[in-house]
Amino acid sequence: MYRTLHLDLGERSYPIHIGPQLLKQPELYQPHIRGRQVMLVSNETVAPLYLDTVKAALTGYRIAQVILPDGEGYKNLDILNRIFDALLEHRFNRNCCLVAVGGGVVGDMTGFAAASYQRGVDFIQVPTTLLAQVDSSVGGKTGVNHRLGKNMIGAFHQPRCVLADTDTLSTLDDRQLAAGLAEVIKYGLITDADFFTWLEDNIDRLCARETDALIYAIERSCRCKAEIVAADERESGKRALLNLGHTFGHAIETGMGYGNWLHGEGVAAGMAMAADLSARHGWISASDVERIRALLSRAQLPAAPPPEISRQQFLDLMAVDKKAVDGGLRLILLEAIGAARISADYDPRLLEDTLDNRLPLTGS
Amino acid sequence: MYRTLHLDLGERSYPIHIGPQLLKQPELYQPHIRGRQVMLVSNETVAPLYLDTVKAALTGYRIAQVILPDGEGYKNLDILNRIFDALLEHRFNRNCCLVAVGGGVVGDMTGFAAASYQRGVDFIQVPTTLLAQVDSSVGGKTGVNHRLGKNMIGAFHQPRCVLADTDTLSTLDDRQLAAGLAEVIKYGLITDADFFTWLEDNIDRLCARETDALIYAIERSCRCKAEIVAADERESGKRALLNLGHTFGHAIETGMGYGNWLHGEGVAAGMAMAADLSARHGWISASDVERIRALLSRAQLPAAPPPEISRQQFLDLMAVDKKAVDGGLRLILLEAIGAARISADYDPRLLEDTLDNRLPLTGS
Repeated sequence: MYRTLHLDLGERSYPIHIGPQLLKQPELYQPHIRGRQVMLVSNETVAPLYLDTVKAALTGYRIAQVILPDGEGYKNLDILNRIFDALLEHRFNRNCCLVAVGGGVVGDMTGFAAASYQRGVDFIQVPTTLLAQVDSSVGGKTGVNHRLGKNMIGAFHQPRCVLADTDTLSTLDDRQLAAGLAEVIKYGLITDADFFTWLEDNIDRLCARETDALIYAIERSCRCKAEIVAADERESGKRALLNLGHTFGHAIETGMGYGNWLHGEGVAAGMAMAADLSARHGWISASDVERIRALLSRAQLPAAPPPEISRQQFLDLMAVDKKAVDGGLRLILLEAIGAARISADYDPRLLEDTLDNRLPLTGS
Repeated sequence: MYRTLHLDLGERSYPIHIGPQLLKQPELYQPHIRGRQVMLVSNETVAPLYLDTVKAALTGYRIAQVILPDGEGYKNLDILNRIFDALLEHRFNRNCCLVAVGGGVVGDMTGFAAASYQRGVDFIQVPTTLLAQVDSSVGGKTGVNHRLGKNMIGAFHQPRCVLADTDTLSTLDDRQLAAGLAEVIKYGLITDADFFTWLEDNIDRLCARETDALIYAIERSCRCKAEIVAADERESGKRALLNLGHTFGHAIETGMGYGNWLHGEGVAAGMAMAADLSARHGWISASDVERIRALLSRAQLPAAPPPEISRQQFLDLMAVDKKAVDGGLRLILLEAIGAARISADYDPRLLEDTLDNRLPLTGS
């Protein structure tokens, strides 16, 4: 039993299948592979766990593979080139299909390789982390990092289909699971107060990896993201809300050195900071901030910025962030739990208080 | 006095301005620059000739520049990264505009950098070679080479406008001018017999760089290409006709080592080979082949393959060419001067004769 969410993007529409035992089902891949050539892309950690299962489901195709080193630090143009090397060494043509088996890094790099190889070929996403299942599955963002900033080089390129197999979450370590929950919590905060409440009631089931709870959370997260993305496919207005916690979070990830903080951990701390800054403006209450921090903590996530990063470091790191627009820095802040908004009208002095992690307002 | 060709591509429509003295006209750039940040991209040869003129036309903008080494051998991911370095070091945002001042290599790389930087920013093309003016101006193809094949990594990304300044052709050496004429002749061969005849009558004026003749040839070439591309923006059917001479030509370029044969020279020899193969099948006459070879020769272009490349080398090099489709190799051949067609039904033994450059059929 699995669920399918159909994303309606005109000629680039695609299904997201969510449930257990998906990797082994040939009929989920076949409709989306044009030719006979399939390039599996994975990393050293994930490949030994799942690649044989995927291969078994793809008998009859001419399969090649490229195994990348594992980690955000390898998400760059040099490592990307290994995928092009493999495609060209095997003389893969425009009808080939890339299959990304791994987390967000593998998905982003494979997607960008597919976007760029011969100016665009097909790819299928098999996300094996919770974060990738709820984040990379929707939106078509692909790319690599540059030493001066995250995700600075990339393309919009939609997969042909996504297989979010919940069984793959059983091999995630607790920290990776929590990082995925950060993005799940994000959807509740941005747009779906009921989902936030559901998460408060079910966070322990999610931490215990109960399949039913996972399927529900993944589907509802993908649906939230899809609704925002469908309204704004090429990121101008509403889509920016998805960056809640990300400007702070990227600064933390970069400031602490790529790979030391997980993306979801940065986003979690960033959401806590966004909530803190929103409360300092009086847009949400101190008790809202406490609910948010409490849920993050129960999900084993950081709920404050790391003390290692100074206010000035934050400001420098955020200036290059791609969400910065001419002149001022825009931030995603909260008007309520379940209602985020883009803000350029925050008070810079209050931002400094948040960056300094001064004692937050209490509900006095 | 200049002419403007308006390309109708929906929201990606753009003008191509053709004529003398264009570089210095601020009003040709301004409508197409969204923010204040402009990154000039050029190469070591072209920059000293024209960059000051372009800068003078862009006073008031925050201008930065990156100067690439000159040559097809530098059209790769490593050198591309220098453009990303410059963009990020100057903290350029999504509203920035890249301006490519140079030939096809600069245009292709700048266009791909613009396609990929923050998943897509604007760019303006200022092609300074005849080849780039008639080829890169239309079609939106951008990209870089891989050691295993030309243009294997790239994107479709349309410029905001093209400034084809005929004055820049005065500094081209004769060989570069001839390489551009190869593409001009190609349009006559593919689709426009009257233009081919016009070229037979005016080739000497073009070789003498008479401005009026150049404007006419550039505009008619761009129009031919635009009509084909408009019918088929994302290359499936008709657009492949533009590859007349290119499968052979790419093999020659690669086989002789990138940069030793100019792209246009490879295409010229490739068109002669396509004509030869077409005549061996009886699709065009031996006298058609002679007209084609004669026009190429008058334009100072090669009209036969280089003897250094063996038949087997040709076959190996062509197999990886991106025009190859599952199984068989498709070629663009001629049914008449002015009427090309995609062919998978050629006789492989006749292809071998063409690759061996056996004595062609005579008009007996």
